[in-house]
Amino acid sequence: MTHALKIAQVAPFEESVPPPKYGGTELVISNVTEELVRRGYQVTLLAAGDSKTSATLVPIFKRAVRRETFSQDLPKRDAVKFIGAGRVVEYLRKNTFDIIHNHLGWRLLPFSQLLPAPVVTTLHGPLDAEYQQFVYGQYARSAYVSISNNQRRPMPRLNFVGTVYNGIEVAAFDFSVRPGTYLAFLGRMSPEKGAVEAILAAKKARLPLIMAAKVDAVDQQYFSQRVKPLIDGRQIRYIGEVDHPGKVKLLKNALALLALIQWEEPFGLFLVEALACGTPVIASNRGSVPEIIQTGKTGFIVENYLQAARAVKKVGDLDRRACRAAVEKRFTIERMVDGYEKVYRRVLKR
Amino acid sequence: MTHALKIAQVAPFEESVPPPKYGGTELVISNVTEELVRRGYQVTLLAAGDSKTSATLVPIFKRAVRRETFSQDLPKRDAVKFIGAGRVVEYLRKNTFDIIHNHLGWRLLPFSQLLPAPVVTTLHGPLDAEYQQFVYGQYARSAYVSISNNQRRPMPRLNFVGTVYNGIEVAAFDFSVRPGTYLAFLGRMSPEKGAVEAILAAKKARLPLIMAAKVDAVDQQYFSQRVKPLIDGRQIRYIGEVDHPGKVKLLKNALALLALIQWEEPFGLFLVEALACGTPVIASNRGSVPEIIQTGKTGFIVENYLQAARAVKKVGDLDRRACRAAVEKRFTIERMVDGYEKVYRRVLKR
Repeated sequence: MTHALKIAQVAPFEESVPPPKYGGTELVISNVTEELVRRGYQVTLLAAGDSKTSATLVPIFKRAVRRETFSQDLPKRDAVKFIGAGRVVEYLRKNTFDIIHNHLGWRLLPFSQLLPAPVVTTLHGPLDAEYQQFVYGQYARSAYVSISNNQRRPMPRLNFVGTVYNGIEVAAFDFSVRPGTYLAFLGRMSPEKGAVEAILAAKKARLPLIMAAKVDAVDQQYFSQRVKPLIDGRQIRYIGEVDHPGKVKLLKNALALLALIQWEEPFGLFLVEALACGTPVIASNRGSVPEIIQTGKTGFIVENYLQAARAVKKVGDLDRRACRAAVEKRFTIERMVDGYEKVYRRVLKR
Repeated sequence: MTHALKIAQVAPFEESVPPPKYGGTELVISNVTEELVRRGYQVTLLAAGDSKTSATLVPIFKRAVRRETFSQDLPKRDAVKFIGAGRVVEYLRKNTFDIIHNHLGWRLLPFSQLLPAPVVTTLHGPLDAEYQQFVYGQYARSAYVSISNNQRRPMPRLNFVGTVYNGIEVAAFDFSVRPGTYLAFLGRMSPEKGAVEAILAAKKARLPLIMAAKVDAVDQQYFSQRVKPLIDGRQIRYIGEVDHPGKVKLLKNALALLALIQWEEPFGLFLVEALACGTPVIASNRGSVPEIIQTGKTGFIVENYLQAARAVKKVGDLDRRACRAAVEKRFTIERMVDGYEKVYRRVLKR
């Protein structure tokens, strides 16, 4: 663009940007923000006060709300969403921007007509909850970005101005050209992530499975009743939550990542992270999977764990260089920010 | 005032104004609104679309949110609060007012700096929940009205611009000069309303007790375990929920109302309604009670049910005309609106 646009990035307050551990949305926001700064834009990040950025940081709360004791108290947590929205709106009105990029979701939209610049909202989560139809339906003419085409399905009438895939920092992922000897599972121990299905596929394929995952409070029962009995510590191993180096080590040495998801995953950063390490993905035919994985090239798209077990036999034959190349071509930070530049231009043209 | 002020009244959306049955806040809002119109102000009521008013009605939702099936769905209910706040803010910005009278509580305050007229907030509920300290503390300099002096206690630092007692339409309450032969209980079957204490006092005083009350879902267990076993259908009778004529009949023929409340009742419309019928009140020394009841004149203020039983012996000697007179002097709609006129003047002077 010809002049340096003034861009406001509005992040959720629950987590810092970037997140210390999990938090895909906050990682993406951080990547977008830093790359926009690098490209010469004047970027302001409205976020939790313990965020780290080379943009101008406007702390909406002192620290990530998740870290405050009050976030345990539901009425306070509810109130914080209003208080935060009020602070965001107040700041955005008192300062001049060309474009406001909203990552907060619907909670900003009731007040977007008060904002002096166009608002574009990236929808980071799935859109299939009934209440979302109700809420976003109120603001259908606002400008939305989907993170996959599949994500749009439940809401065909929203004014989508583009799909921008999430991008990762490819250099942060070591690449190995040699297929590993075990299967990997990464993410959360939850029914929708297909933890049990991954175990069944590995058992059927008679290959070791290493599972790196966190167990959220809501998934505790699923984990102890359904998953834990299947973990034998030899063929099926659970190594807990991993940090970035642990994740890279797990992925790059694997034969394949098993992503037998049981829900409409709107993007799935972990798929791309595996590919960046050269590791093909065996994934369910759901959510964004068909947009990310090319069957027979960067992995296999399957309907169930039996097909997954069969795919395991062939997955070692895939060229791991093609996996890395797919990420370099389609899922880098640069590519993502190219997408957002296009979106900003489109929104500003109106 | 010299010119007809333009006043916006912002009501909650959950219930219509006035409410079909219970809903003290909505009844008070209706009374304030109608009397302001009668006095020649230009009044706009922002409320549920099935409200009835002689002011200009701005429907924020089509019908009272409580009546919509979506209000059963918690995420939708949460969203409705944001959507509604957005609609209120949008309307108030597009139209000219001299003063905005907020009955919504804190949910409007994060956006009050966007409103082109001063906002005064009447706090209709108790203020002793910890999260309220947290939220109202963010907006301590906003202008608040308490409905009793006692209500202010947990929040001494808020900018209170007045206490305005709730007022009732006295003519709607039949007056009887003759003391009745039974005790009355009115309101909700809940621990904080002192249902069990009222029964114990009546048993001790050996007088009949007639209880008219609704049982909220949250109070079901309290009612069935603690109250119901004490109801014998002869000395202690429960007549369910009553409408206005039923309430007046119950009150005016009673010897006294038992209001042995176990919480900091911020005002207590039912105390004033009993007095309007000429019926003295025997009430706990809590909440707004000492501001409403004059012991030895319009009732007795007691510390427990034993004192209440003793007060019952003397309550027939009180002059029931004094009870009615107290309401006519202090708790009429006219008196309440005189109070709000003063508050508006005070806020506009700044």
